[in-house]
Amino acid sequence: MAQTKFLLDESEIPTHWYNVIPDMPNPAAPYLGPDGQPVTPDALSAIFPPAIIEQEVSTERWIPIPEPVREALQLWRPSPLYRALRLEQMLDTPAKIYFKYEGVSPAGSHKPNSAVAQAYYNREAGIKRLTTETGAGQWGSSLALAGSMFGLEVRVYMVRVSYEQKPFRRSMMETWGGEVIPSPSNRTQAGRAVLAADANSQGSLGIAISEAVEEAASRDDTNYALGSVLNHVLLHQTIIGLETRKQLEKAGDYPDIIFAPCGGGSNVGGMMFPFLADKAAGKDIRLVAVEPTSCPTLTKGHFAYDFGDVAGLTPLMKMFTLGHDFMPPGIHAGGLRYHGDSALVSQLYHDKVLEAVAVPQVATFEAGVMFAKAQGIIPAPESSHAIRAAIDEALRCKRDGESRTILFTLSGHGHFDMAAYDKYLSGGLEDFDYPDEAIEAALHSLPKVG
Amino acid sequence: MAQTKFLLDESEIPTHWYNVIPDMPNPAAPYLGPDGQPVTPDALSAIFPPAIIEQEVSTERWIPIPEPVREALQLWRPSPLYRALRLEQMLDTPAKIYFKYEGVSPAGSHKPNSAVAQAYYNREAGIKRLTTETGAGQWGSSLALAGSMFGLEVRVYMVRVSYEQKPFRRSMMETWGGEVIPSPSNRTQAGRAVLAADANSQGSLGIAISEAVEEAASRDDTNYALGSVLNHVLLHQTIIGLETRKQLEKAGDYPDIIFAPCGGGSNVGGMMFPFLADKAAGKDIRLVAVEPTSCPTLTKGHFAYDFGDVAGLTPLMKMFTLGHDFMPPGIHAGGLRYHGDSALVSQLYHDKVLEAVAVPQVATFEAGVMFAKAQGIIPAPESSHAIRAAIDEALRCKRDGESRTILFTLSGHGHFDMAAYDKYLSGGLEDFDYPDEAIEAALHSLPKVG
Repeated sequence: MAQTKFLLDESEIPTHWYNVIPDMPNPAAPYLGPDGQPVTPDALSAIFPPAIIEQEVSTERWIPIPEPVREALQLWRPSPLYRALRLEQMLDTPAKIYFKYEGVSPAGSHKPNSAVAQAYYNREAGIKRLTTETGAGQWGSSLALAGSMFGLEVRVYMVRVSYEQKPFRRSMMETWGGEVIPSPSNRTQAGRAVLAADANSQGSLGIAISEAVEEAASRDDTNYALGSVLNHVLLHQTIIGLETRKQLEKAGDYPDIIFAPCGGGSNVGGMMFPFLADKAAGKDIRLVAVEPTSCPTLTKGHFAYDFGDVAGLTPLMKMFTLGHDFMPPGIHAGGLRYHGDSALVSQLYHDKVLEAVAVPQVATFEAGVMFAKAQGIIPAPESSHAIRAAIDEALRCKRDGESRTILFTLSGHGHFDMAAYDKYLSGGLEDFDYPDEAIEAALHSLPKVG
Repeated sequence: MAQTKFLLDESEIPTHWYNVIPDMPNPAAPYLGPDGQPVTPDALSAIFPPAIIEQEVSTERWIPIPEPVREALQLWRPSPLYRALRLEQMLDTPAKIYFKYEGVSPAGSHKPNSAVAQAYYNREAGIKRLTTETGAGQWGSSLALAGSMFGLEVRVYMVRVSYEQKPFRRSMMETWGGEVIPSPSNRTQAGRAVLAADANSQGSLGIAISEAVEEAASRDDTNYALGSVLNHVLLHQTIIGLETRKQLEKAGDYPDIIFAPCGGGSNVGGMMFPFLADKAAGKDIRLVAVEPTSCPTLTKGHFAYDFGDVAGLTPLMKMFTLGHDFMPPGIHAGGLRYHGDSALVSQLYHDKVLEAVAVPQVATFEAGVMFAKAQGIIPAPESSHAIRAAIDEALRCKRDGESRTILFTLSGHGHFDMAAYDKYLSGGLEDFDYPDEAIEAALHSLPKVG
């Protein structure tokens, strides 16, 4: 019986996060305020605790993980690394395929890795409540879980259309004690303004962010928490890649190519940053972000300053973007429907340290179903993007008779995405390649900077 | 950082199942046919393969697990044993609480442990197709998964009301390639008879069993598979208790009391049988089956011969039963709504080797939510029955200042049960204690034997 799971003891949970900033060939451009000047740490203190702000700008390579955070992570970590032997056999490929499975967390994805750290630092800073936004519910449920672990109240502004269509993610947040408010709501100026204009508004992530930030900024006992994009979130996620390195050592293997799904960048940063120094040292390893063709931020976007949200309330970040008023179609991988990308991931992609590829929706579900039949686990549609790319590479290896080692992040399970599988299986899913003209047009919305 | 997860290597997956039959103080009574005579193995060969029939009556203590079955189990096994440190802290109890987590299987419960074995033996016997029934969908999805692993077609007759109300379990089965038919259907005589009487019939587990058995019996390439009650199913589940014993050794601990949820008996047999010899040898250990007050088979039923299904098509089994036409209320733990119990579990309970306790629905959900807040994992409502009993024991320990070691089986996660959580959280759940008179009355339906 060949070994297919590579496990670590709890004592092997990393003691430090890896900060990629000191190892980047070129630094990411600073965040800018409405005045076009770099945002000061002070400006962020209305909604973030000091430790998080410090991490956002730190140039230390290794940042210690506080013991209470390690104890919280211990509930599900270390997560397993699998050799996908059955998938290899199904594809009849000479390639070896490994995947790191983050769906073992109680919330079902990698998101709690940062949620527990953010909850801890906020509690340490005397904060009693956290607000956030959620679309499909992955991040909202992760923060509700983290709140229950550190004794913080969590209020989640959930995009109204999701609130109504995805009641089970809502029930999950409430089970952990989170409060879920359909957005737009009457609780904030931002929400009331939207409702005044359209009493039946279905909401959007942009509006929900505005509501969550407004509430956090207006209350001393309340802060805001974000689940991707920012440096500190990617920092917390590096635990994925750090564990994977140790597990591959146990497997006696090293990847030739790594795939991770890419929305805001927390998966890409989490898995790939810890392999960056090897690459810089001359190791022959490819790091490939996988995004949907319907939201091709890296593969078709422009590298420019843009807002992080639709309403233009966030600082300006230099990133690959499709324009902050880009409206991605309603694909079934909500976590990848984001117009921009992390500044760190964007800079590294610009510097050709990271690569990117875009895959279409139907082929992505096809890959997810193949994977489920081979390995049992039903993947989240976001994760299936990485699976698609890994399968394509394994098939290429078969064609070319090459034995390569492929690694990908299986960022979550699809237990709350079965409606999307149902639609795929009944032939109701379509591909959507965003037309180049539309992307060009959206770029005109880019703010003028400098 | 105290250790909270006790893991085994894949090489430590047990090589043999443990058969409790040779170690029982009194043997279970034989299954009887319609003629009142013991059922012969031959009579079962229309729907079961030879290896399964042999296991059903074997008196060998250890039965080897075929290597392809171990390789299939390897996809998710060994499953972790957890120390529930955070729950202990929340309860402020001197007791130690351990739980064995079976929700790590792709189908989300312990059910695939037997499904993969049954699929394997059927494939070895040249069978191409399996039929089965499912209510809530746990067993049906486990068999669909197993079918995809061993190249068998799987047809699941799903109780129509569940088919309509629980589309996500259906999508899960279809993702693994299973075919799901709402029952009653027009494909069988049994189904057509029901529809002729009531074209709008919502179906029942009894009807679905009849359809699945009828189809299996009428086709040479097709067999039937059952997810609980029978000896061979409990045998396959003993892998749970066997792994747990090894893990407790690593933890340097031994349980004073074990709880498992009890419907047909596959959890009770799976966890407890491997501890039975210790008890027989004088070890002070209590083995407690936990059932709902709404379906109090062991705690209020009679020990008598009865049919396994509503329609009276199965052999007669001597078991604790509430009468085969007992209609349990629609509680949110579908896996525990069964009028009878495994013959093995029933005999051992009759002989006072096993104990039983019944817990009400609302208190069960309360325990499930406490557990989710403490340990992260949202439990299946079935599993929450064991959690309720474990918490009650831990609180008793606190009252009495006793340090005991409590172990329970967390048989599955609740990702497909969030509607039930929602109902609990919004105050819409009720308790249902089946009145003694009703249980008495139902017993009049017991068939006359001998």
